[in-house]
Amino acid sequence: MKDVAARAGVGLKTVSRVVNKEPGVTADTERRVQEAITALGFRRNDSARILRKGRTASVGLVLEDLADPFYAPLNRAVEEVARAHGALLINGSSAEDPDRERELALALCARRVDGLIVVPAGDDHRYLEPEIAAGIATVFVDRPAGRISADAVLSDSFGGAHEGVAHLVAHGHRRIGFIGDRPRIHTAAERLRGYRAAMADAGLPVDESWISLGPTAPGRVRAEARRMLAGDRPVTALFTGNNRVTATAVRVIAAHARPVALVGFDDLELADLLSPGVTVVAQDPARLGRTAAERLFRRLDGVVEPPRRVELPTRLIARGSGELPPARG
Amino acid sequence: MKDVAARAGVGLKTVSRVVNKEPGVTADTERRVQEAITALGFRRNDSARILRKGRTASVGLVLEDLADPFYAPLNRAVEEVARAHGALLINGSSAEDPDRERELALALCARRVDGLIVVPAGDDHRYLEPEIAAGIATVFVDRPAGRISADAVLSDSFGGAHEGVAHLVAHGHRRIGFIGDRPRIHTAAERLRGYRAAMADAGLPVDESWISLGPTAPGRVRAEARRMLAGDRPVTALFTGNNRVTATAVRVIAAHARPVALVGFDDLELADLLSPGVTVVAQDPARLGRTAAERLFRRLDGVVEPPRRVELPTRLIARGSGELPPARG
Repeated sequence: MKDVAARAGVGLKTVSRVVNKEPGVTADTERRVQEAITALGFRRNDSARILRKGRTASVGLVLEDLADPFYAPLNRAVEEVARAHGALLINGSSAEDPDRERELALALCARRVDGLIVVPAGDDHRYLEPEIAAGIATVFVDRPAGRISADAVLSDSFGGAHEGVAHLVAHGHRRIGFIGDRPRIHTAAERLRGYRAAMADAGLPVDESWISLGPTAPGRVRAEARRMLAGDRPVTALFTGNNRVTATAVRVIAAHARPVALVGFDDLELADLLSPGVTVVAQDPARLGRTAAERLFRRLDGVVEPPRRVELPTRLIARGSGELPPARG
Repeated sequence: MKDVAARAGVGLKTVSRVVNKEPGVTADTERRVQEAITALGFRRNDSARILRKGRTASVGLVLEDLADPFYAPLNRAVEEVARAHGALLINGSSAEDPDRERELALALCARRVDGLIVVPAGDDHRYLEPEIAAGIATVFVDRPAGRISADAVLSDSFGGAHEGVAHLVAHGHRRIGFIGDRPRIHTAAERLRGYRAAMADAGLPVDESWISLGPTAPGRVRAEARRMLAGDRPVTALFTGNNRVTATAVRVIAAHARPVALVGFDDLELADLLSPGVTVVAQDPARLGRTAAERLFRRLDGVVEPPRRVELPTRLIARGSGELPPARG
């Protein structure tokens, strides 16, 4: 801190004010201090540890939706790691809105969290560069950061989707529909890429009417699933891009006249008890959360290393719906 | 604040330090300031609003388990209300451990949250009295506070369980098992009370071997359900005390030789798609969270009124499992 103060030509108190985002510093002074911090590779958490006296440490977590059961075990796993490090968890939902993600992440930084774990809704995270430069450790989870270099802990969406679609192909399907989340979401795009690759690897043509990406609202998913299952040459199987889509697709299929094969990305509670059981490509959301939080605390403990992307494997669980043969048209 | 300072015989700065739990105040001075605060009915949030300049407001939420899908919509609903009031959400799990609940609630207070929403694990909340006296608005949700008077937003556990068990009785069942959560949990005790009342109202004797309260771990629930379904005079129906218990009971019943009727407290995703669909007594967790958060912000807005207990109705959803007749023994 002394070095930063000397380099910026200000007092220690001023450096502390800038680091802690307290008022009473001119824009010009703040910029000089920030430049000195960047130049010297000053780690905010080192100073935070000194300045924090009496404050509880905290970690911010920006999720897509606190109410989505996929994120519940991830949330809990981050909490457990934070707790083991004596830190509280401050969290919130972006509701898949990049502006809301940005607003929430910056509010957490202003609240002086020690570190940040983000499930990004947007694809441009340059707004976090000053915070990261100022020493707020940041790890992305479930989806990578956009336009900045940062730690990311992901599931193998491409590989998982490839395996799930190949499984349907192996059970005789040639006409397979793909219903996924909005195309700008990294996982949705990766799973679509896995679908296309598996079809191509099997030498199967893809009709673009078999592909539908968009919001996971039940109304949209229901309409798209019904459309793909109607007409002269319907699809005989569906691959669904996440747990929200699968929950709706299962209902459409249950009400459909002919059997339709289904493999869904993400596991669902009770999925094993349906008739047939739902075959899924399962992620491990608790492990995603735990791995991201451990990575974050490694950084907070002062380990300096280049940003790393960790990809966790998925697991195909065959339960019946993905092993149905194609129904006669 | 001036009145508090004058009454305690200290400067404004000292009052601010005490209110904000900053260091540099002797125990004696702190006590005098706290006494003056209590005597004058000083509301911390009034001062907080002044002192907070530049800080984001925040609300603490202590849940039982961030990973339990029941709490996910409650969590999200609290977040939405907090967000509408410009406040961040700091949360965590008590893991059904009263010590951990206390530790977490006090850590949130030390972190200077403006208000606190608690799903209590313990049954003695006198430890929160100094915090509440110091102006931290506190609302209990899902379960009431113990040994203090405080706002509480609950579901009608007694009425819901009574209705669910009466539904089984109306379908011809006389031997009905009850598997619930640990007896010291208010909702578990209330639901058992509802079960006993419904049996008594129908003039049916209850064999104590039909009742099992304890942890909701699948192993315990499985063993208890199997025990009740075995022997010469098994139960012909089960009433399960929450979603965790139901998820396991459904699996035991699916593997059982004879049909067993089931009504579960709490709804579950996909419960309507099982064969038969699972009849449930549904709560509205999002409404619980929203009502509690609105109550909290009413207090934070300065509304002074006696603590109130709000009880939300439950809703019986008949889907098939609760309408099965008793199987022949």
